[in-house]
Amino acid sequence: MIIIPGPASYDLGMKVAKLLGEKLVPVEFKYFPDGESYVRYTEDVDGEDVVIVQTTSPPQDTHLIQLLLLINAAKDLGARYITAVVPYLAYSRQDKKFRPGEAVSLKTVIRLIEAAGANKFVTVDVHNVEALKEFKIPFVDLSAMYVLGEYAKSCGFGGAFSLAPDEFASSRAKVVDDVLGGGYGWLKKERDRVTGEISVAKKVFDVQGRDVVVVDDIISTGGTMVAATKLLREQKARKIMVMCTHPLLIGGAKEKIIRAGADSIVGTDCVPSDVSIVSIAPVIAEYLRKGSRGA
Amino acid sequence: MIIIPGPASYDLGMKVAKLLGEKLVPVEFKYFPDGESYVRYTEDVDGEDVVIVQTTSPPQDTHLIQLLLLINAAKDLGARYITAVVPYLAYSRQDKKFRPGEAVSLKTVIRLIEAAGANKFVTVDVHNVEALKEFKIPFVDLSAMYVLGEYAKSCGFGGAFSLAPDEFASSRAKVVDDVLGGGYGWLKKERDRVTGEISVAKKVFDVQGRDVVVVDDIISTGGTMVAATKLLREQKARKIMVMCTHPLLIGGAKEKIIRAGADSIVGTDCVPSDVSIVSIAPVIAEYLRKGSRGA
Repeated sequence: MIIIPGPASYDLGMKVAKLLGEKLVPVEFKYFPDGESYVRYTEDVDGEDVVIVQTTSPPQDTHLIQLLLLINAAKDLGARYITAVVPYLAYSRQDKKFRPGEAVSLKTVIRLIEAAGANKFVTVDVHNVEALKEFKIPFVDLSAMYVLGEYAKSCGFGGAFSLAPDEFASSRAKVVDDVLGGGYGWLKKERDRVTGEISVAKKVFDVQGRDVVVVDDIISTGGTMVAATKLLREQKARKIMVMCTHPLLIGGAKEKIIRAGADSIVGTDCVPSDVSIVSIAPVIAEYLRKGSRGA
Repeated sequence: MIIIPGPASYDLGMKVAKLLGEKLVPVEFKYFPDGESYVRYTEDVDGEDVVIVQTTSPPQDTHLIQLLLLINAAKDLGARYITAVVPYLAYSRQDKKFRPGEAVSLKTVIRLIEAAGANKFVTVDVHNVEALKEFKIPFVDLSAMYVLGEYAKSCGFGGAFSLAPDEFASSRAKVVDDVLGGGYGWLKKERDRVTGEISVAKKVFDVQGRDVVVVDDIISTGGTMVAATKLLREQKARKIMVMCTHPLLIGGAKEKIIRAGADSIVGTDCVPSDVSIVSIAPVIAEYLRKGSRGA
């Protein structure tokens, strides 16, 4: 097995290769003056099982094209089996037609990854795993929730209450609760499809004087986490740790969440950021170690 | 036939529809806060012959993903036949392996356009038309050279000498010369593949005291046009008009070329810019009017 760290996930790819003790082949990468990406494999991949690690966090389109160039070049160069590890999958929230005539962007992205030549797709905490069934190749959705829970525990959050911002994410809170053991629940979130404004129903939890971990897959503009944090503050929670797999943190989201009353924000290196404290590398490495082809 | 103006070629798409007298269906378009593109067809395209006009000039990756979303959504919505009109084709200069292990990016882009669901591909003055043979669907490479020549003539350049910056582009200069009638020639250009530096051999032309039009497919950083203009100035040319189909004009290229001695720079709206004076719309419209499916 050869690990290829893409330009968007260079450090993560290096960590995965190190944990596995597998060979790492660096990619020569540059931007041309006009902004086009250039990629070149620095070693032969002919006949090899290749694992390409490249997230598609912002700038999504550029990272996505780089991923597709890497996959297609590996295929062109004779790679035997290509596993695309895409920790954060761009366009995963546009997974159905919310209004007539809309592009189902995720479906297009899936078609492109297949057309480029991937034989297997691996991602982490995708927004809606059902939507991945559009893949004709084998796919796997790993989860960061266990390692996030372990991290929270190491920070003294053992026994904390785990809260998901909506019912959809409640299974994620349940995994964190398996580690922390203080019970879990979920909020009722509503999003206006046109304005994008988020509101949270006034639901009461057993959090007074207790530590709480709020977990979600993605923090984008942070509206959900701001609403959740405010509600928890109203209900006299003690320490609040806001956690997510994919810290996109658009437009000062981090500052907004802290201002709303969170004590800390923690994400993973699925999306590199200044809060990407927890590495997903062990989860990916463990999967690759035991995962046989097509598994 | 329905014309769909993509967000990167909105004005051009409108012009093409108007010239043809065909129905135009606007696309609702926006960026999400995280930078992802959103596209929605505002009218039914089920069973229709759809022409999507979307260039892939910088930001190339974003415009390319928008193109792929538009094609794939049209297919998903039941369009009968999808013609992708991509006036400037991104990654067209990475059309072969210049060094071992390189991604042949153009080949990947072609695979993606096909996978999205295009039935026919139309572009303008692609860098190397041979490379388009990678397409399995029918493709057409239109030319802006005739309309560029007509424009130069309207500016008083009738009888001017037409110069291509290299032998590869000499057939383009020949078309301009068919309009201007003052003879044509080409320079011998050399590009260092590693540094990208451009040099031009000292070749003597019959340009003393005469007007000259220099034509190329793309002006990127302008190095080629600067070298050509300087050589023409040394050989005492009178007025120099620098023309191209795709005015990318990266990093102050326009100013550099003017400083080298060109009197004017003219491009087409294949790439929207402040020198995109000549519209390619009549060329596209004429092709679509007479072009039958697969022609």
